[in-house]
Amino acid sequence: MIGYPNKKSPAIKQSSPTTYQGRGMSLEHDLNISNTYYREVKRALIHKKPTPVQVVRVDYPSRNCAKIVEAYYKTPSTTDYNGIYRGRAIDFEAKETKQKTLFPMKYIHEHQIHHLEQVLYHGGIGFVIIRFIHYNETYVLDAQIMIDCYRDENRKSITYQEVKKQGLLIREGLTPRLRYLDAVDELYFKEANNHER
Amino acid sequence: MIGYPNKKSPAIKQSSPTTYQGRGMSLEHDLNISNTYYREVKRALIHKKPTPVQVVRVDYPSRNCAKIVEAYYKTPSTTDYNGIYRGRAIDFEAKETKQKTLFPMKYIHEHQIHHLEQVLYHGGIGFVIIRFIHYNETYVLDAQIMIDCYRDENRKSITYQEVKKQGLLIREGLTPRLRYLDAVDELYFKEANNHER
Repeated sequence: MIGYPNKKSPAIKQSSPTTYQGRGMSLEHDLNISNTYYREVKRALIHKKPTPVQVVRVDYPSRNCAKIVEAYYKTPSTTDYNGIYRGRAIDFEAKETKQKTLFPMKYIHEHQIHHLEQVLYHGGIGFVIIRFIHYNETYVLDAQIMIDCYRDENRKSITYQEVKKQGLLIREGLTPRLRYLDAVDELYFKEANNHER
Repeated sequence: MIGYPNKKSPAIKQSSPTTYQGRGMSLEHDLNISNTYYREVKRALIHKKPTPVQVVRVDYPSRNCAKIVEAYYKTPSTTDYNGIYRGRAIDFEAKETKQKTLFPMKYIHEHQIHHLEQVLYHGGIGFVIIRFIHYNETYVLDAQIMIDCYRDENRKSITYQEVKKQGLLIREGLTPRLRYLDAVDELYFKEANNHER
């Protein structure tokens, strides 16, 4: 989902500090502010990649001002987020669904699966963040589980129960909004945690 | 440097296979085709990040066709290239200069230096690729050397001789055009090379 700058962002609802229901924020927004927080406290260096745009025509209404007047969205060749966490390369895609019982595989694209396969091959940490909007629950699901499901021709979806069981629920808060690196610690650094932290 | 799609890329000059002088290719182009090659042979997973664009207005001339009619280039908050190599997060910026004796610090921006500092802090491999167009020589220079030079208020440039001495010359060929990962091996995996390769 692309947030156009002329579309006003919804104001942050300052509700009771103990409940974070119904904020109406998109997953992308939540991840962006969480990543900014993680960068500021130097916990991780993770950015959302810009949406690739094919620029066709640029005007120069004045010196030092380039105005793009014709461009088109391109299909990305990677996932949306990547960076470095605890010395490891980290790479993930984020998706949300309004479905209650399943996450449809068609929400994930071939290029994203292919990219995640390469991430794992080269020794990076790869996963998918899935939000079930209905339950206001967001999960970290290891890339391999998503890849296996996608590559299984008999499957058109992964069920909510499977994600609940095989993924890890992300705790939410104010800062960071989505404490997804705690889930990453649990999933990928469990041994190290016992020693380091 | 941004290559607009309506600007024709210069054709590849099929000169003698032993000399690659005067190809007139941009460093970005050379890196892109080298990265494609490295991905195809599964040596590394490195991409150029899309140039960030602030989209202001989009028209829909037909269903399923979004035409961006007003947008502006944004200042990126990271370097241009990143990915995974030999299990490590890798991140770099690429610059070229026509100067013969020095590389001016003004070609590097504060956000790029800041980002490279964070890359090193989080345990990634960070460097700058510098091409001296006059000599048709391209070097890998460790990020820390570039950062130190940038942060030194008394310095406005790094000399060609310094880059030659402290950096590593990238060998060129047909595939990949720029064998820059060989230089990365030499600079960052020397110990591992003796054991693994």
